[in-house]
Amino acid sequence: MSFAKLDDHCRALGALEHALSILGTDEAVNMAPGGGEARAEAMAGLSGMYHRQATDPHVPDWIAAARAEELTQEQRVAVDELERSYVNLTCLPPEFVERKMRTGMRSEQLWRTARPKGDWEAFRPALEGVVALMREEAAMRAEVLGLAPYDALMEQFDPGNRSADITPVFAELKAFLVDFLPRALAVQEQRRARHPLKPLSGDYPVERQKSLGLAMMQAVGFDMNHGSLSVSDHPFCGGVPTDVRMTTRYRTDEFLSALMGILHETGHGLYEQNLPKAWAHWPSGKARGMALHESQSLFVEKQIGRNPAFWHFALPLVDAHLKESWTIEDLLPHVHQVTRGKIRVDADEVTYPLHVILRYELEQELLSGRLEVRDLPEAWDAKMQASLGISTLDDPKNGPMQDVHWPSGAFGYFPSYTLGALMAAQQWAAIARLNPDVDAEISKGDFTMVNAWRRDNIWLKASTGSTPEILEQATGEALNPAHFIAHLEARYGG
Amino acid sequence: MSFAKLDDHCRALGALEHALSILGTDEAVNMAPGGGEARAEAMAGLSGMYHRQATDPHVPDWIAAARAEELTQEQRVAVDELERSYVNLTCLPPEFVERKMRTGMRSEQLWRTARPKGDWEAFRPALEGVVALMREEAAMRAEVLGLAPYDALMEQFDPGNRSADITPVFAELKAFLVDFLPRALAVQEQRRARHPLKPLSGDYPVERQKSLGLAMMQAVGFDMNHGSLSVSDHPFCGGVPTDVRMTTRYRTDEFLSALMGILHETGHGLYEQNLPKAWAHWPSGKARGMALHESQSLFVEKQIGRNPAFWHFALPLVDAHLKESWTIEDLLPHVHQVTRGKIRVDADEVTYPLHVILRYELEQELLSGRLEVRDLPEAWDAKMQASLGISTLDDPKNGPMQDVHWPSGAFGYFPSYTLGALMAAQQWAAIARLNPDVDAEISKGDFTMVNAWRRDNIWLKASTGSTPEILEQATGEALNPAHFIAHLEARYGG
Repeated sequence: MSFAKLDDHCRALGALEHALSILGTDEAVNMAPGGGEARAEAMAGLSGMYHRQATDPHVPDWIAAARAEELTQEQRVAVDELERSYVNLTCLPPEFVERKMRTGMRSEQLWRTARPKGDWEAFRPALEGVVALMREEAAMRAEVLGLAPYDALMEQFDPGNRSADITPVFAELKAFLVDFLPRALAVQEQRRARHPLKPLSGDYPVERQKSLGLAMMQAVGFDMNHGSLSVSDHPFCGGVPTDVRMTTRYRTDEFLSALMGILHETGHGLYEQNLPKAWAHWPSGKARGMALHESQSLFVEKQIGRNPAFWHFALPLVDAHLKESWTIEDLLPHVHQVTRGKIRVDADEVTYPLHVILRYELEQELLSGRLEVRDLPEAWDAKMQASLGISTLDDPKNGPMQDVHWPSGAFGYFPSYTLGALMAAQQWAAIARLNPDVDAEISKGDFTMVNAWRRDNIWLKASTGSTPEILEQATGEALNPAHFIAHLEARYGG
Repeated sequence: MSFAKLDDHCRALGALEHALSILGTDEAVNMAPGGGEARAEAMAGLSGMYHRQATDPHVPDWIAAARAEELTQEQRVAVDELERSYVNLTCLPPEFVERKMRTGMRSEQLWRTARPKGDWEAFRPALEGVVALMREEAAMRAEVLGLAPYDALMEQFDPGNRSADITPVFAELKAFLVDFLPRALAVQEQRRARHPLKPLSGDYPVERQKSLGLAMMQAVGFDMNHGSLSVSDHPFCGGVPTDVRMTTRYRTDEFLSALMGILHETGHGLYEQNLPKAWAHWPSGKARGMALHESQSLFVEKQIGRNPAFWHFALPLVDAHLKESWTIEDLLPHVHQVTRGKIRVDADEVTYPLHVILRYELEQELLSGRLEVRDLPEAWDAKMQASLGISTLDDPKNGPMQDVHWPSGAFGYFPSYTLGALMAAQQWAAIARLNPDVDAEISKGDFTMVNAWRRDNIWLKASTGSTPEILEQATGEALNPAHFIAHLEARYGG
C-alpha cells in the first residue's frame, strides 16, 4: 500500500509538471504579449505547489514502508531514484532556497541590462553575490550527499558524474584540441583553395523550410502523433513525452541554421518520446540528466546530421523541399565549418569543448575560492588566449558575461555540453562496432538499427542508473575521449 | 490577517484555474493527436487539487475571522461571493460528486456513439440514470441553499435567477414568437420576391478571412495585446483575462459563418479582458455567469453585428480584406435569414428562443418527475410541433438527442442562452435611451460610447452582485422581454 501511496504522490507531481511544461511552451510560442505577468504568477504558484508536495515530510516514511513491501526489481529502482531525487530537493533549508531564488532573479535581471552594454563593473557585484551563495550551497549539498562540493552541484544535473573522472578526460581532450585546432583550420583552408566556398545565401520561404524540417524529423524517427514543430525566439524542445513540443526559428536568407537546429532538437525529442511509458510519472522513468540528453541531441545533430553519409540521403530531400539543387561538395564545407570565436553558442564541434573546459576550470576555481570574481576577466582572457588564441579583455560582453548560467546560479552545468558530445561519439562508436554498415544504412535514410540500439541502451533506461552507469552499460566502457578525438580526426583532420 | 489568508487561498486557486484554462485551450488548438490520454490525466489531477483546495474545511473559519476584521466595501463583497461559491462547491457529498462524474462521463460517451445513429433506445437508459441523479442533486442543493430544486441548479450558472421570474417572461416571449415567426417568414419571402437572394458562395482563402476577422475584433474593441485568434474544430473563447484565446473555424466557400462566429466570441472576450484586474483571482472579480456572458457575446454578434448600421462600417472592411464587392442589400438578407429548423445551434435569433424555452419547460418536468425519459420523444415532438411546426418523432438524433447538455448532466443551463439574448436587447435599449445617435456612431465604426457603458455597467461589475441585480443596476429595470420583442419587430417585422 505504501508503494501505491508513492505512486499517487508521483502522479500528482506529474500533473503539475505536465502543466508547468505546457505553460512554459505556450508562453514561448502562443502567449499574447500582455499575458506575461499573470503567467509568471500562475507558474510561480504551481511551482510552489510542486515544491511543497515534492518535499512532503511524509515521503521518507512512505519510502521506508514501501521498501518493507514485496517489490519488483523495477519498483525497487523506482523507489531508490525517488529517494535520490527527494534528498536532492530537500538538502537545502527553505530559507536558503528563497534567498537563492531572489538573488538569482535579481542577478539575472542585472545581467540582462548590463550585458548589452558590456558593463562588467555594473554586473560584478551581482555575480559576487551569486558566487558567495553557490559556495554556501555547494557546502550544504556536499555535507548531505557526502560528495565534494563541485560534485554535489553536478549531481543535480548528471547523477554520478564526478570531477575526479571528468578532469583527466577534459585535460586529455584540451591537450588534443589545442594542437588539433590549427591543423583543422589549415586543412579547411587547403580544401577551400581547391574548392571555393559556395555561399549559402538565397531566398528560402519559411513554409518550404518547415516542410523540409518536418520531413527530416520524421525521417530520423520523430513521431508526429506525439509531437509538433513550431516557432519561438529561442529554439527548444519542451512539452511532455506524449506531446513533445519542438521549436525552431527561421532566417529566410539561408536554410542550414534552422535545419541543423531542428535535427538537434529532434535528438532531444526522440529521447523524450521513447522513455518507458509505464514509469512516466516516476523519477526513474524520466530522462537521466543534462549530459545524456545533450548526447542524444548531439547524436542526431553531429553524429548523424553532419555525417557525409547522411547527406547522400538528405540532399535530395533538401532539393525537393527548397526547390533548388545543391551538391555534397558545395554543402559539406558549410556543415563542417570550423572557426575560432569568442562565443560558445556559435562554436563548432571542434572549438566548442574548449569553451566548455574553460568554464569548467574557472567555475571550480570560483567555488573553491582560488579565484575571485574581480579577477575573472583576466583569468578568462588568459585561458581564451591559451586555448583559442583570442583575447576578450576589452570585450567582456563576449567574455565572462556571455552566458546566462552563472548569473542565474547554475554552476556545475557547463560540463554537460561536452560530456554530451563525448558520449554521443562513444555511442556512435559502439553502434559502428556492432554494425560496420551503419554509414551505408544512413546514406539510404535507414535509421532502424541506429534507433533500435539507442532505444534499448539509452531511451528505455531512463533514470534506472546513474549517468556513468548507463553509458558504461550501453557502450561497454567508461567515458573515453578517444572516440570523440577519433571522430574529429576523421572529419576534420584531413 | 484572515483576509490575507483568503487572498492567498484565492491566488493558489487562480494558479490552478490558469493552468486548467490554458491546458484546455492548448488541447483544442495545439496538442499532438497522441497527447490526449496524458493530458486528460494531468487535467484530472489538477482538477482534483483545485477541488480539494477550494473546499478546504478551514475556509468557513477564515471567512468568519475575516468578517471580524476591518474590511473595505469591496473586500466585504469579495468575502460574500467567496462564501457563496464555497457553499455551492461543498453542498454535495464527495461520494455523490464522484458518482455524478462517473455517470455523466459514461452517459456522454454513450451519447457520442448513439447520437450519429439516432439510436434513442440505446441512449435512453443512460439519460434515465442522469435524470435520476439530477433529481437527487437538485434536492440536495435545494436543501442547502433554501431554494426550489430547479432554482438550485440554475444557481450554479446564474446566481439569483429564479424560475418564478423567468417563467412568465418566457411565456410572454413564446406567445409572441409563435405568432411572430410566420409573419417574419412572410416578410422575408416578400423581400426576396422583390430582391432575389444573391448566393454567398465563393472562394475565400483562410488567410484573408483571418485578417478580416482580426480587423473586426480590433474594431469592436478586442485588445490584441491580451488575446489572440486561432483555429479549432469547435469555436470557443478560452484562456485567461490577460490572454484571451479565441478560436474559430473557416469554410472557404463562404465567409459569413466564420465572421459572425468571431464577432460572437469577441463579445465573450471583451467581457473577460475588461474584468477588474485587482480582483482577478477572487470569485467577485470573475465574469458573473452564463446568461450575462451570453448577453455579451450576443450583444456583439446580434445587437452590433447584425445591425444594418454596423454594415455601413463593416462592408468596406469586408471588401478590402476579401477583395470583392458586396452591397448592403445583397448581404443583409444573409445576416437576417430566418428559418424553421430542428436544430438549436443552427437557429437564428427569431427561432432560437423557441428551442430554448422547449428545453426549459421539459427539463423542469423531467426534474419534478411530471415527465419520464421514456416519454421524452413524444413530449419533445409535441412542443416542436406547437412552436415551430416541425416534427422530430422519426429523427431523435435531431430531437432530444441533439445537445450534449443533458447527457453530460447540465440541467438548468439552457435558459441562459435566451436570457442572454433578452439581456443583450435590454442593454442595447438602455444605451439607445442614453444616446439616440448610437446607430450613427456604429455606422462610423465608433464603439467608444457603447463600450464605455458596457465597461462601467457590466464588465467592471464582474460578480459583485447577482445576475438580476447587475442587470437592474445597469438598465434601470428588471428583466423585461419587451426590448427583445421590439428588437425582433424592428428587424424582422417588416
